[in-house]
Amino acid sequence: MKKNIEWTKRHLLGIEDLDRDEIVTMLDQAEGFKEILKRPIPKVPALRGRTIVTLFCEPSTRTRISFELAAKRLSADTVNITASSSSFLKGETLKDTVRNIEAMQIDMVIIRHSCAGAPLFLSRCVEASVVNAGDGAHEHPTQALLDIFTIREKLGKIKGLNVCIVGDIAHSRVARSNIHALTKLGAKVTVCGPKTMMPVDIEKTGVTVTYDIKEALKKAEVLNVLRIQAERQNQLLFPGTREYIRGFGITKAKLKKYAEKDILILHPGPINRGVELSQDVADGEYSVILDQVTNGVAVRMAVLFLLSKRRKQ
Amino acid sequence: MKKNIEWTKRHLLGIEDLDRDEIVTMLDQAEGFKEILKRPIPKVPALRGRTIVTLFCEPSTRTRISFELAAKRLSADTVNITASSSSFLKGETLKDTVRNIEAMQIDMVIIRHSCAGAPLFLSRCVEASVVNAGDGAHEHPTQALLDIFTIREKLGKIKGLNVCIVGDIAHSRVARSNIHALTKLGAKVTVCGPKTMMPVDIEKTGVTVTYDIKEALKKAEVLNVLRIQAERQNQLLFPGTREYIRGFGITKAKLKKYAEKDILILHPGPINRGVELSQDVADGEYSVILDQVTNGVAVRMAVLFLLSKRRKQ
Amino acid sequence: MKKNIEWTKRHLLGIEDLDRDEIVTMLDQAEGFKEILKRPIPKVPALRGRTIVTLFCEPSTRTRISFELAAKRLSADTVNITASSSSFLKGETLKDTVRNIEAMQIDMVIIRHSCAGAPLFLSRCVEASVVNAGDGAHEHPTQALLDIFTIREKLGKIKGLNVCIVGDIAHSRVARSNIHALTKLGAKVTVCGPKTMMPVDIEKTGVTVTYDIKEALKKAEVLNVLRIQAERQNQLLFPGTREYIRGFGITKAKLKKYAEKDILILHPGPINRGVELSQDVADGEYSVILDQVTNGVAVRMAVLFLLSKRRKQ
Repeated sequence: MKKNIEWTKRHLLGIEDLDRDEIVTMLDQAEGFKEILKRPIPKVPALRGRTIVTLFCEPSTRTRISFELAAKRLSADTVNITASSSSFLKGETLKDTVRNIEAMQIDMVIIRHSCAGAPLFLSRCVEASVVNAGDGAHEHPTQALLDIFTIREKLGKIKGLNVCIVGDIAHSRVARSNIHALTKLGAKVTVCGPKTMMPVDIEKTGVTVTYDIKEALKKAEVLNVLRIQAERQNQLLFPGTREYIRGFGITKAKLKKYAEKDILILHPGPINRGVELSQDVADGEYSVILDQVTNGVAVRMAVLFLLSKRRKQ
Repeated sequence: MKKNIEWTKRHLLGIEDLDRDEIVTMLDQAEGFKEILKRPIPKVPALRGRTIVTLFCEPSTRTRISFELAAKRLSADTVNITASSSSFLKGETLKDTVRNIEAMQIDMVIIRHSCAGAPLFLSRCVEASVVNAGDGAHEHPTQALLDIFTIREKLGKIKGLNVCIVGDIAHSRVARSNIHALTKLGAKVTVCGPKTMMPVDIEKTGVTVTYDIKEALKKAEVLNVLRIQAERQNQLLFPGTREYIRGFGITKAKLKKYAEKDILILHPGPINRGVELSQDVADGEYSVILDQVTNGVAVRMAVLFLLSKRRKQ
Repeated sequence: MKKNIEWTKRHLLGIEDLDRDEIVTMLDQAEGFKEILKRPIPKVPALRGRTIVTLFCEPSTRTRISFELAAKRLSADTVNITASSSSFLKGETLKDTVRNIEAMQIDMVIIRHSCAGAPLFLSRCVEASVVNAGDGAHEHPTQALLDIFTIREKLGKIKGLNVCIVGDIAHSRVARSNIHALTKLGAKVTVCGPKTMMPVDIEKTGVTVTYDIKEALKKAEVLNVLRIQAERQNQLLFPGTREYIRGFGITKAKLKKYAEKDILILHPGPINRGVELSQDVADGEYSVILDQVTNGVAVRMAVLFLLSKRRKQ
């Protein structure tokens, strides 16, 4: 673990708020924790006595467990609140909920919420550190950090890399957080998807846009393939799953035909196998999807550690 | 933390069972724990190796978390059972459930149940200590203890104070527990609410009754405002929410017009803002509602600690 | 706790996979842990820093809590996943779920699943140890181990004992695991139930079959009474609950009339009182049903300990 790290921010609400150095600090810290996770007893006393609440108002066992494991490996105590089991959110405004959490002297709140901006709102009402675990279509900062950690680990750098994000860019918090992080670290980012899934003026964020998967695959060194949300189909963003697969589903055949180099394959999970990714690509030699899951715990340890380190100084 | 405290009771089923000295012992012990909660690592090893089960057969994330935090800050292990997720309560009598819990060598059971008397029943079948976290319209002893702890902390005493409880007195376990505790400590208690929400013969408990909020506010130094349960409206206890607000909702305007002194405002939460309490009163300078939440953890630590201290001696 | 125990298996998928010595090693290890559970602080640091996931895809608070307590008393960290609250199992194959769990560097997965073979499948995809907490009508190995531990504790031996299992043999994983364990340890096993609830060719497993409770009670020294699943009635396996009680319900009257010696009464719980067991037998002097629950924690500690001991060596 690096010493003498200076960390000043209380919350992690989005990658948009971080500068290049802060992102690198997070990644370096996560590297230290990844080493610790290889020990026989993968646990450090860094957050002993601290209490971390996970407040998940959208279901996501996977992300919740990753955060919970990160907290436990730092020796923090965790309390889980889910919206379905929770009267916290009934007959009470979010503000009241939040102020109650604060009143119980909790050190950190990890929140997932279907409304963009909920973590920001929360951070304005409380003393506790707030970590955004995904808010609507806004940001999912720890996902972007673990994606970039994984790319850096595999390819040794981010700067100058051709990274392409494929899928429903307009509705994806993963895409937004990745675009912020990748452009700040100097990657060349392309986004690719159907026109109905492309945000207006996306070029202004510094990315290249293409609606043609051939073109996207041609120069890409890294592909971050987004999950297609079945429920979005009702909104008629594309004619059907079959049309999506034909146009944008990543298959070994397409990679072989159009890619000029080996392409690293990332996916935030859970995968719709046979839709956005074919079976052979998801489990193929260039897939780093399970590395992403492993790195997620180390990255989240780094986030909790740095925010908490700041708080008490 | 005070030393040489003598505690003899195994269970905390209600305030009715406690004498004045026992209540004061609980409050003093909670004061000690409140100091500990201010430390950088707010944790003591007092209950290390002990196992505490929370058995919540009515939803209440807030109270469950407060108990869970109290247990964790005493270093106890906790296991949560909720009725909705639990097959513990299906196809099995409560007695069997309870005897099974006992058989797993659990030290303490914190139970919330919709039936008055469920904690008492449970205490008769098990060796483990039983803590009532609210049973029907009967008692909610830790709520009363934290209310009184907060009043004592803010005003320096309980004896002789004019405390008024406002709302649905007949169906409130919070009211019942508070009446027991306050009268035992020598406060002058008034209850105020619509006639349909007033229990028969309530005067026999030593309280003054009024159906007029003006009269209640006139002499009160402390107001404990109960939550109005929306579901009670179906029982036609009052014509409508608007009528309730007009008659008994606490607003800044009413306080200004009728109160003779500054009145401390308590509420057990969660608040129906704009119903029993207006926004400006809930967040006003005399509101100690968030102090109640903070004190709740310290009070529950005191309860768990004292019961467990007794048990092993 | 015994020293120098050699344990080689990574998973506990069923009793069928264990030989006699391995079963005895488990029971002896559990005996050591039962002693530890009597200490004032019933906790050992054996699995400190290890992470154990409980993945319950069928509701069973009782078994889940028993495993969770076992893990906590070994100082392991636990993460609970239930199917109802879990997006882990939606839009994702079980294989993906499992590989994700593995990627988070979890040491052990305790799985309950309605499909026979789910734990085996899981064990083939992961590095983590897999413990079967009940899979369909296949096996429930820890239940059999705790049953046999309890019999051995009470009667001093298994070899040569007349043990009768009564109920729906065909659909019972408890029956299957018990038959494997008891025959391996040299007990004389009889199964008794209606013809519609008896598997074809059950005699080939080395047990005696009877459809007559009188005959069963005549020579039995131990009775393991299975739970009758109300939902099975829809499958018309027997005409009605009343008919079942008349034929196979264990009552004090029947025991008095037909049994030749005192019979130890076991039941895996939860009991349908008045159906498979009468009130007076369930709570009677020969019932060891609550001992089974107590022993369950010690037995599960032994399982987690031995599997984990193997893993890191």
